[in-house]
Amino acid sequence: MAKPLIAMLTDFGSRDHYAGALKGVILSLCPEVSLVDISHDIPPHDILTGALELAACYRFFPAGTIFLAVVDPGVGSSRRGIAAEAGDYRFVAPDNGVLSAVFAETPPKRVVSLTERRYARPTISKTFEGRDRFAPAAAWLARGAEVAALGTAVRDFVRLEIPQARQEADTIEGQVLRVDRFGNLVTNIPRAMVEHLAERGPIRITVGGVAVDSLVETYAGVASGAICALFGGSDHLEIAENGGRAADRLGLTVGAAASVSGSSGAARG
Amino acid sequence: MAKPLIAMLTDFGSRDHYAGALKGVILSLCPEVSLVDISHDIPPHDILTGALELAACYRFFPAGTIFLAVVDPGVGSSRRGIAAEAGDYRFVAPDNGVLSAVFAETPPKRVVSLTERRYARPTISKTFEGRDRFAPAAAWLARGAEVAALGTAVRDFVRLEIPQARQEADTIEGQVLRVDRFGNLVTNIPRAMVEHLAERGPIRITVGGVAVDSLVETYAGVASGAICALFGGSDHLEIAENGGRAADRLGLTVGAAASVSGSSGAARG
Amino acid sequence: MAKPLIAMLTDFGSRDHYAGALKGVILSLCPEVSLVDISHDIPPHDILTGALELAACYRFFPAGTIFLAVVDPGVGSSRRGIAAEAGDYRFVAPDNGVLSAVFAETPPKRVVSLTERRYARPTISKTFEGRDRFAPAAAWLARGAEVAALGTAVRDFVRLEIPQARQEADTIEGQVLRVDRFGNLVTNIPRAMVEHLAERGPIRITVGGVAVDSLVETYAGVASGAICALFGGSDHLEIAENGGRAADRLGLTVGAAASVSGSSGAARG
Repeated sequence: MAKPLIAMLTDFGSRDHYAGALKGVILSLCPEVSLVDISHDIPPHDILTGALELAACYRFFPAGTIFLAVVDPGVGSSRRGIAAEAGDYRFVAPDNGVLSAVFAETPPKRVVSLTERRYARPTISKTFEGRDRFAPAAAWLARGAEVAALGTAVRDFVRLEIPQARQEADTIEGQVLRVDRFGNLVTNIPRAMVEHLAERGPIRITVGGVAVDSLVETYAGVASGAICALFGGSDHLEIAENGGRAADRLGLTVGAAASVSGSSGAARG
Repeated sequence: MAKPLIAMLTDFGSRDHYAGALKGVILSLCPEVSLVDISHDIPPHDILTGALELAACYRFFPAGTIFLAVVDPGVGSSRRGIAAEAGDYRFVAPDNGVLSAVFAETPPKRVVSLTERRYARPTISKTFEGRDRFAPAAAWLARGAEVAALGTAVRDFVRLEIPQARQEADTIEGQVLRVDRFGNLVTNIPRAMVEHLAERGPIRITVGGVAVDSLVETYAGVASGAICALFGGSDHLEIAENGGRAADRLGLTVGAAASVSGSSGAARG
Repeated sequence: MAKPLIAMLTDFGSRDHYAGALKGVILSLCPEVSLVDISHDIPPHDILTGALELAACYRFFPAGTIFLAVVDPGVGSSRRGIAAEAGDYRFVAPDNGVLSAVFAETPPKRVVSLTERRYARPTISKTFEGRDRFAPAAAWLARGAEVAALGTAVRDFVRLEIPQARQEADTIEGQVLRVDRFGNLVTNIPRAMVEHLAERGPIRITVGGVAVDSLVETYAGVASGAICALFGGSDHLEIAENGGRAADRLGLTVGAAASVSGSSGAARG
């Protein structure tokens, strides 16, 4: 049997001991596990960003990977903890929508509430369920427990609304969902939607009301310092500056409107 | 025999190659080790923070874990390096107090000075003993060496004074020891001390001279944006803002006074 | 056979999912690999810093280690990807000079362009070759592929000019190459060059035009708050402040001139 793999995504940061405590708990229960850090630097309490970053990478992991996703502003409250199976993966997280973007792409086969007390630590801190409830649940999955064993099935798990691009006639309206480390403005407009529109004639792209003239294949497709549009690693429209930070240059951030309009449409970016 | 585990806590940061060099040295000596990052982002030279973060998580790791703790402003000077056994764990660190908070909780069974030259690298940089002395010592422990083999026993290892909460009559006086990533003000006042006082009547909590009205179980126990007191993951009194950063809101940081006074006491926060 | 080891150095940061995606791709192809993070916090697009940090630590890793170095401002353009053997190590990187400092110390025995399509992912994003081309190439090496199998040999790989210290008569002229987390100014002036000059009489050290009076063995060799010169962990001249940040104190950064002049020379720092 292959060695179990737990991949972690949290907003715990890298200065405090919190992520370390989770790792210790997991290794205590399942010493043979491989632990992988995806990120501990999700902005504090930012469930949507956590959901998007997880959804952008989970499918590159091996079948069988267990994802432990802890972005949990409601820690200790009545919000549930959940474990889920979706595709070839399993997930443990607070029931606050942090798995929504994964589930939108890969509907879960099974979701349970973490009601089985024996898969948690004997004492559960009301401010640190990551350590006392979620990490042990992930470790028990790594040890061979079934998702179904961890608790009672639930269907009303929280679904976060992930803003979707919409097309009306010849105009696609979307928005910036992520600003990455390089200052790229990553929108929710899928490549297929844009390419379909472009087949019918010239298109016009705007972000935050500013027209973006060049739709290129790669950053180097425009001069250094120029703004361009391209399709990023997740095949969504992205606004970038070759060699610079488009977000700073244009003064835009998450939530900025983005639009693509065809020859007969009028951009309302 | 279980695979050896080395957990690292340093102030080396994540941009420079320093933590990477330690990992390389360890893996060269002990290829089968599992390496776990607790944190490399302890504030530079901040021994007390390193001590507290280590103490807050070591007991969640499996028995047998070797902790490599390098926060070392006195690198290259005459301060010693030490290896220690405490509880089911072993530790390697500069002898500057970075293990003090662990030792206050779990008195060491054995502490040695790293005098046995063969457990270090052939050449020892006076500015990078983490790489040349501490990492190899940890790796040799992982390979099966005994703590006693690494050097001569010492009893006068450095004990850093960790500020303790004190109770006089009906008043507990403590202070903020840590501000975490979420802006929570974590004090040194233990839950048991507060609960004991609260059994005798109403209590009043202050931090930095400001009264904190709500003692709750979880952040969500108060309205969004409200300040509250609760017991954090390490069972110490913590001042928090639901959905916000108490440290910023109250303008307080490490060292701020915290107090809990009973019905007959007078808070002097 | 020992477990394969891939050590990663990128400018992807720790907030986005990018480094996580690389890890997932590698583990999907080679589940038994050990993954080590050297750094994901190389400043964005800063090839020279990536080259220097990699060169400062690679030789501490076990023979057989595969280094995956992705700092790639030209992603998607016509710049090649390469795999290389140098010393006991193998490397995968964009062909932009990020391996130059390693190669300057350890000339490569073989460099190939990553032309063999089957060692990449089926679809290669023009904005994320780290995930689709470089990570798979490293994973295939970990699975046992030879460097030669990955593509056609190249000799004209990019060599970045790493600024070198030069000596003329009694004066060594160099510059600050790195400012580390502790604010130390790390120059390109090797210890041997300085010691050779010092054998002939007193020397005078300057950085950014400021004379540095003390050449010491360790930070603690001067009073707290004093500026000193010493030889850092890579045996190059470094300007430091005991207990402080020399870079901030002197207002200097990468590129600042550094000089060492003998009794008969005149420093031109």
